[in-house]
Amino acid sequence: MTGASARLSVNGPRLIADLETLAQIGRGPGGGLDRTSFSAADSEARAWLLRRCAEAGLRVHTDGIGNFVMSPDYDAETAGRPAVWSGSHIDTVPNGGDFDGSLGVLAALECLRRIQEERPTLDRPVRAIMFTDEEGNYAHLFGSSALARGFSRAELEALTGRDGDRFVDTFSAAGGDLDAAANTKLNPAMLHATVELHIEQGPFLEQLGHDIGVVTGIVALGGGVVSFLGRADHAGTTPMDRRQNALTAAGALLVALPEVAANVSANAVVTSGIVTVEPGSANVVPGAARVTVDFREAETHLVSALEAGIVAAAQDIALRYGVQAEFDFETTIPPVLLDNGIQTVIAAAATARGLSHSALPSGAGHDSQNMAQLAPTGMIFVPSIDGRSHCPEEKTAWSDVENGANVLLDTLLNLARD
Amino acid sequence: MTGASARLSVNGPRLIADLETLAQIGRGPGGGLDRTSFSAADSEARAWLLRRCAEAGLRVHTDGIGNFVMSPDYDAETAGRPAVWSGSHIDTVPNGGDFDGSLGVLAALECLRRIQEERPTLDRPVRAIMFTDEEGNYAHLFGSSALARGFSRAELEALTGRDGDRFVDTFSAAGGDLDAAANTKLNPAMLHATVELHIEQGPFLEQLGHDIGVVTGIVALGGGVVSFLGRADHAGTTPMDRRQNALTAAGALLVALPEVAANVSANAVVTSGIVTVEPGSANVVPGAARVTVDFREAETHLVSALEAGIVAAAQDIALRYGVQAEFDFETTIPPVLLDNGIQTVIAAAATARGLSHSALPSGAGHDSQNMAQLAPTGMIFVPSIDGRSHCPEEKTAWSDVENGANVLLDTLLNLARD
Repeated sequence: MTGASARLSVNGPRLIADLETLAQIGRGPGGGLDRTSFSAADSEARAWLLRRCAEAGLRVHTDGIGNFVMSPDYDAETAGRPAVWSGSHIDTVPNGGDFDGSLGVLAALECLRRIQEERPTLDRPVRAIMFTDEEGNYAHLFGSSALARGFSRAELEALTGRDGDRFVDTFSAAGGDLDAAANTKLNPAMLHATVELHIEQGPFLEQLGHDIGVVTGIVALGGGVVSFLGRADHAGTTPMDRRQNALTAAGALLVALPEVAANVSANAVVTSGIVTVEPGSANVVPGAARVTVDFREAETHLVSALEAGIVAAAQDIALRYGVQAEFDFETTIPPVLLDNGIQTVIAAAATARGLSHSALPSGAGHDSQNMAQLAPTGMIFVPSIDGRSHCPEEKTAWSDVENGANVLLDTLLNLARD
Repeated sequence: MTGASARLSVNGPRLIADLETLAQIGRGPGGGLDRTSFSAADSEARAWLLRRCAEAGLRVHTDGIGNFVMSPDYDAETAGRPAVWSGSHIDTVPNGGDFDGSLGVLAALECLRRIQEERPTLDRPVRAIMFTDEEGNYAHLFGSSALARGFSRAELEALTGRDGDRFVDTFSAAGGDLDAAANTKLNPAMLHATVELHIEQGPFLEQLGHDIGVVTGIVALGGGVVSFLGRADHAGTTPMDRRQNALTAAGALLVALPEVAANVSANAVVTSGIVTVEPGSANVVPGAARVTVDFREAETHLVSALEAGIVAAAQDIALRYGVQAEFDFETTIPPVLLDNGIQTVIAAAATARGLSHSALPSGAGHDSQNMAQLAPTGMIFVPSIDGRSHCPEEKTAWSDVENGANVLLDTLLNLARD
């Protein structure tokens, strides 16, 4: 290890300027960022990122699904060895915030720039990565899933976006090659370790007054769609007692979800973020109503309990309102434990910089949960002001941004040395 | 009046064939008709209707908003006198039925064809009409509102459709002239009376076992949007007790609406047909949720009571869930009483044909409520099987279709003679 006098640090103002510049791309009418994957704003952000890499003399490889892998230009002699990767994503949810994903990509870019500038002697190559479509416009953690397990051509054909567009149409229109998109699996032997810096997106570090979160793992995640099927009827001519109103039943489920969570555990969360109504006309009694459900707990069996609670509540409601309930659940994503050794490296880096830190799990999904299937993986959290995320108010103090990036740089350099 | 031996009747098989042909235009994936106004299917249906008129030797005048006025070619000497109009619309709600509107247009066309064929001596001209956008893609009862009160250019500029398109864009793309669209008000002196044949869309005639409904009036109608404004947050990282979930509040209002109706009267109906969620992502706690409300009662003060009940329920719910409630109500459409004299003519025509009939109000809005502002107006209902409407299952027995059209023909001929 290098001593304190030789320790590299990030260029904080440059990182902050990059975050501010990227936050200007895709600002939407709701005040947040509308930079959904493969949108015009996403393409503009990608082009900007490529220019920033070129300005820094970094090389960029784009894989079949559009993930960027960024490299310094001087490490040819170690380039064939298992690498240390760090990165996140630059796509956003609709009306999202400036830090989710962007921080992890731009901090990794900044670390790589400092490495390129200072050319430290390393035993392994360091790479920055930008993952495609983390926010799941087409598929949950799309880009890292493409690396960890890959997608067949048939699977790609079946994907549709939030706006109802087919992935293959949008991807082809953007110049993508579908054969390459179906051939993205990464050989795990290429990787030594991966580390992702991210905002916490929750209230705990702020409540504790701590600078750095050492992430222990990512909670288990269930999701799907509950559909209520009733009978479409005229809103003016159908007496109230003759209705089989699918949307009334959906409303009852929305009201019941907090109780479903509370019945399983104090930490469980259950959310519905999308409701669709058919036929969707103000003067028609809804014949069908579909609500998405997203439910999470640290342990797989408690996620199963949440799913069972949703089913029981919906079936009870369907009986009460004279409609049918149907369920389409995705396979539960099991919890991921992050690497203990990397957690120790992160904690030591924070301590060495005089930063307080605590261990905590992540309630949000991250590309790191896929990367952990390929190599030892760690995550670093920095505090979110008021715990806000996925909204225009999402914010992290600039001092925390710089602290997190420095801990990331220390961690990457440590992992890149024998 | 002509005697029974000279009485004209409609050509039932021809009318039924027209209904079956029109029902093939715009069949959607849900099994119903997707013939929303100014859609490709609506344009195709209009072109078909123009061809049917041409085949019958009828003339068609299209006004500035796209209403069709169809005339025989032989009545030049009476053409300047106040006319007897009959018609309805051919646009549908999304996934709508084969009879709503279409019956009234095609039965009026059939009456006009019989008049053209038999050339009875009449004191007033008879006209068939097809109204634009009755189902309110852009504005509730759009075509007849354009005749009764007209739209300014600024009002037209402000209209948007169910799909978020601006009316002026869609109308211009379809070749419409916006200056003409802002100049459609009809001089009431042109009209002697109007009559509309329509399916009941409710269960009462079927329950009574009656053939013909003599419509007494159209109930008062209120409508608008209730918005709940909470806080968008990450679905995985925000503890349940820190959420201000706008959609949970919207769900509670959906559940409360039947009780709001029951508290006002046994006949009151309250419906929400559309819910929109912002930002609308499965992994984001909704920051805003907006529900449409449609509420009807026979008397205006009871519609006001329904509106007050919705406000009280929503405000109570907003307090309970820690969100804000906002209201955007349209002006209540007052009830319309239909003309007593025309009711008597309709009832007499039914009796003369040996058809049972009963008086009943309409829970649905119709273009006739606008036409009643211009001239004495009547409506004829025929039974809806199982009371279904605004859905693929909407159906009326062919015998009832023919009975209704004959009562319409008798009524039009009576009104067209001194």
